[in-house]
Amino acid sequence: MSHPHPELGPPPPLPEGALRIVALGGLGEIGRNMAVFEFDGRLLVVDCGVLFPEAEQPGIDLILPDFDYIRDRLDDIEAVILTHGHEDHIGAVPYLLRERRNIPVVGSKLTLALLEAKLTEHRIQPVKVEVAEEQRRAFGPFDCEFLAVNHSIPDALAVAVRTPAGIVLHTGDFRMDQLPSDGRLTDLGGFARLGREGVDLLMSDSTNAEVPGFVTSEREIGPVIDEVVRTSSKRVIVASFASHIHRVQQVIDAAERHGRKVALIGRSMVRNMGVARDLGYLRIPPGLIVDSKEIEGWPPDEVVLICTGSQGEPMAALSRMANRDHPIRVAEGDTVLLASSLVPGNETAVTRVINGLTRWGARVVHKGNAKVHVSGHAAAGELLYVLNLTRPSNFMPVHGEWRHLRAHAKLAALTGVPDDHIVIAEDGVVVDLVDGRARITGAVQAGYVYVDGTSVGDVTEFALKDRRILGEEGFISVVIVVDSNTGKVTAGPEIHARGSGIDPDRFDEVLPQVEKALQENAADGVVDIQQIRRVVRRTVGSWVSNTYRRRPMIIPVVVEV
Amino acid sequence: MSHPHPELGPPPPLPEGALRIVALGGLGEIGRNMAVFEFDGRLLVVDCGVLFPEAEQPGIDLILPDFDYIRDRLDDIEAVILTHGHEDHIGAVPYLLRERRNIPVVGSKLTLALLEAKLTEHRIQPVKVEVAEEQRRAFGPFDCEFLAVNHSIPDALAVAVRTPAGIVLHTGDFRMDQLPSDGRLTDLGGFARLGREGVDLLMSDSTNAEVPGFVTSEREIGPVIDEVVRTSSKRVIVASFASHIHRVQQVIDAAERHGRKVALIGRSMVRNMGVARDLGYLRIPPGLIVDSKEIEGWPPDEVVLICTGSQGEPMAALSRMANRDHPIRVAEGDTVLLASSLVPGNETAVTRVINGLTRWGARVVHKGNAKVHVSGHAAAGELLYVLNLTRPSNFMPVHGEWRHLRAHAKLAALTGVPDDHIVIAEDGVVVDLVDGRARITGAVQAGYVYVDGTSVGDVTEFALKDRRILGEEGFISVVIVVDSNTGKVTAGPEIHARGSGIDPDRFDEVLPQVEKALQENAADGVVDIQQIRRVVRRTVGSWVSNTYRRRPMIIPVVVEV
Repeated sequence: MSHPHPELGPPPPLPEGALRIVALGGLGEIGRNMAVFEFDGRLLVVDCGVLFPEAEQPGIDLILPDFDYIRDRLDDIEAVILTHGHEDHIGAVPYLLRERRNIPVVGSKLTLALLEAKLTEHRIQPVKVEVAEEQRRAFGPFDCEFLAVNHSIPDALAVAVRTPAGIVLHTGDFRMDQLPSDGRLTDLGGFARLGREGVDLLMSDSTNAEVPGFVTSEREIGPVIDEVVRTSSKRVIVASFASHIHRVQQVIDAAERHGRKVALIGRSMVRNMGVARDLGYLRIPPGLIVDSKEIEGWPPDEVVLICTGSQGEPMAALSRMANRDHPIRVAEGDTVLLASSLVPGNETAVTRVINGLTRWGARVVHKGNAKVHVSGHAAAGELLYVLNLTRPSNFMPVHGEWRHLRAHAKLAALTGVPDDHIVIAEDGVVVDLVDGRARITGAVQAGYVYVDGTSVGDVTEFALKDRRILGEEGFISVVIVVDSNTGKVTAGPEIHARGSGIDPDRFDEVLPQVEKALQENAADGVVDIQQIRRVVRRTVGSWVSNTYRRRPMIIPVVVEV
Repeated sequence: MSHPHPELGPPPPLPEGALRIVALGGLGEIGRNMAVFEFDGRLLVVDCGVLFPEAEQPGIDLILPDFDYIRDRLDDIEAVILTHGHEDHIGAVPYLLRERRNIPVVGSKLTLALLEAKLTEHRIQPVKVEVAEEQRRAFGPFDCEFLAVNHSIPDALAVAVRTPAGIVLHTGDFRMDQLPSDGRLTDLGGFARLGREGVDLLMSDSTNAEVPGFVTSEREIGPVIDEVVRTSSKRVIVASFASHIHRVQQVIDAAERHGRKVALIGRSMVRNMGVARDLGYLRIPPGLIVDSKEIEGWPPDEVVLICTGSQGEPMAALSRMANRDHPIRVAEGDTVLLASSLVPGNETAVTRVINGLTRWGARVVHKGNAKVHVSGHAAAGELLYVLNLTRPSNFMPVHGEWRHLRAHAKLAALTGVPDDHIVIAEDGVVVDLVDGRARITGAVQAGYVYVDGTSVGDVTEFALKDRRILGEEGFISVVIVVDSNTGKVTAGPEIHARGSGIDPDRFDEVLPQVEKALQENAADGVVDIQQIRRVVRRTVGSWVSNTYRRRPMIIPVVVEV
């Protein structure tokens, strides 16, 4: 197994008849999935998603793939293929279309509808190409065949990309639920047919490659939800992902069976379920839905609320209920059901919500104490089926952190893919398929692009580093007014500090030290603002460090009059 | 079940013959355990621990219980009883002893030795009272009986406190390992004897009250560790808590069996294992330990390294190895064993370490993929035994978040404790045992006290709020120099920003707006610095909000010359 080395340089020119694949996201992380295929000077993009920030990216709303690699070649893009409608696969499309509006976006009916609803907020009207499983369609030199896959959102697709360089099968996200509620199975027959034809490279979802065995059927969640609704004496509040249409369907079915009305809470929940209902992916019995504003007055034992916030998002309805900062007042006897996974990184926030709700007397049912969630990704035992059916000449695990990619690579090796035909690449690593053999040939820029408020890319790693220091230690700013003619200090030093946790009175101790240092510095009569800044930073910095063993940001501000 | 309400006021005077219990930590949180008992004007403290900060407490090193409730009554304290040597039970003792040095500290041999090693760093020589299981000893009106309990550190104790108000059994932290490697069982016989005598109030460890069933024996970890060491072809690196003497013993035993030398890495690991060895709690074969500086040169298949950092602490050796920022260069074929629990809140940090180590080719064995950890706390099935054996008249779950306290309360109710004899209290809630009945009677101050660097309590919630804003959004400071006689602006406005993620050139847009607003403001000729500040804050604030949809901290600095 080869893996990238820091010393990877720019890739060589792509040989004629060869296919190049560069993931700009999704390799070495869970999220912002995006792969760029290149053949004969033309490009095909598969997925274009966002990554959600962690504590190390304070204040950031979203993280995008870096489009730098394709920015000068936007006109070479034949199409963007979207495997399904999750944010980590479609969320960055608006930002790509901002750079070139008429890139054709290709996807299934539901995927395109969810994308379109999102693009409306960005005031973009996309060029859509609707496809479905068992269809085949060429985009420039890329002859694409679409195959059904089962996932935690309906209407997901895998794509086989044929070029003269060979067949590449990209699974997208998938699971192998053998009893799916909508009957739509992952098309293993199609995978087998491709395997017989000869898959030159398999790119397969690694998210659950570390999880042994098999994922339970989504169908098994139904009875658990039903039991929760049936045995609840007061309100039932269900939190789920706003895209999990199958899960919401099960909640709606249970509510109907037990004579409860349903209110949908949260903008994305209302929007997505509207889309799903209109397209026939969600069945809502007439009269079942009650407006969320009216639901407060309804008897508690006659309602089910479905909301977002299952990941502990502080502004979502659920967190606000836990803090008693929401019109719905959770009380003794209410039941809250977190019918979702716990996305890594959100553990603390979710724990806080569970404790808050418990404090007010609610019973909280979650994946830690009941079978209320199944994963949307195939586990190790299932991934082996895909490897055995497609019998790929080369294998490249995608969609996962390092641990997942390595685990998936091991599974491939167990099924007989030779070690040196397994390519573990990170974001930005260039993989060329030449003469039937996939190899790493270089690397391109593929860093994080941060969305903060309305701006994209303005917030840099430098700014984040400043934020981390400010967030941990606060700052001390020292203002000094200097006469630009004489070099004399005419006002200040004045100290302003925030977040430093130092009693402002204590600054009286350091001010004389600063004054003294400035006097010594001014002895030669030359005004050197850089030098004044250095003296201030050093004097105040050592004082704080010696007195408090802390390192706040020290900001000398020298104003000339 | 009663539970506290926000409207709780100060408690009434304690009736004669009654016992008062106030937890200053550990109720509603996992950590900083501390309970204050009061009888006849005298006080007894049980445990005095720290809580480790989360992301919401940026820059904070430790969180202490608030001693405010006892600060005026330090001389009334008869003793501090320490149930065992973990940080969340002894970590705040140095800070309490700073307020009164000669408070007797009571504990088992190992507990006192670990405390003493810690106090040396604070240059405090404690007044020690060593006790052991099956001993009985009075501290003022508090007649204390000590009972052995098994936990993830040796020599842990429960304590039964007898006063004329009745018998209170405080379990401390415990588990029920029935095959402990040191043969020291939780003294259920003693619990039963107390039950026959009549336990008026049981205070019992709730940490695992939500976990069904039973905790596996520590003994079962041994073979797994052995197998990991036996099958590793290169280096074995084991990360564990620096206090987990039994676990370290198992690693040392495995290393010895397979002919490997051992190096201990990390200050607390070296210190605690030194204490444990000197007192006979850790058996180290002669010649087995190699100095950590020498271990680099040793053949990889002949060494085991034992280090801290199992929680992903960024400065610990393990994180630095994952980042290739440590003399030990983790390489293909090395095995890293995280032989510890994953403390909630540390998931992201630990995931980062696992991915980093995996990236360099190490096999990482952790509780997610092998049986390499068992909990130190009794699970629900075991807690029922304690409730059934002690048959308490009143029950108060301790050591846990709300979810754990409620779950434990339910277990108590199932064993027959009447609902209205179960008291769920939070930190600061006053529980009085009067005439054999425990009731909530009020609440006292019990907030967080932050340790940051060398200072205790200087960092307030205000400062933390500032840090959170600065960390999320950065700041923009606007400096203006004003002539104090004329009120005219003589220099500035000048803008200095950090962490805002705004291109400095863009500030040219807002500067004229600030100047204009200042001119309009100065039209009446009166110098009002507060008013200038308001104008600046409003002008710059709206500009940022409208242009970027962000809310950095805006800091107007007006200097008069």
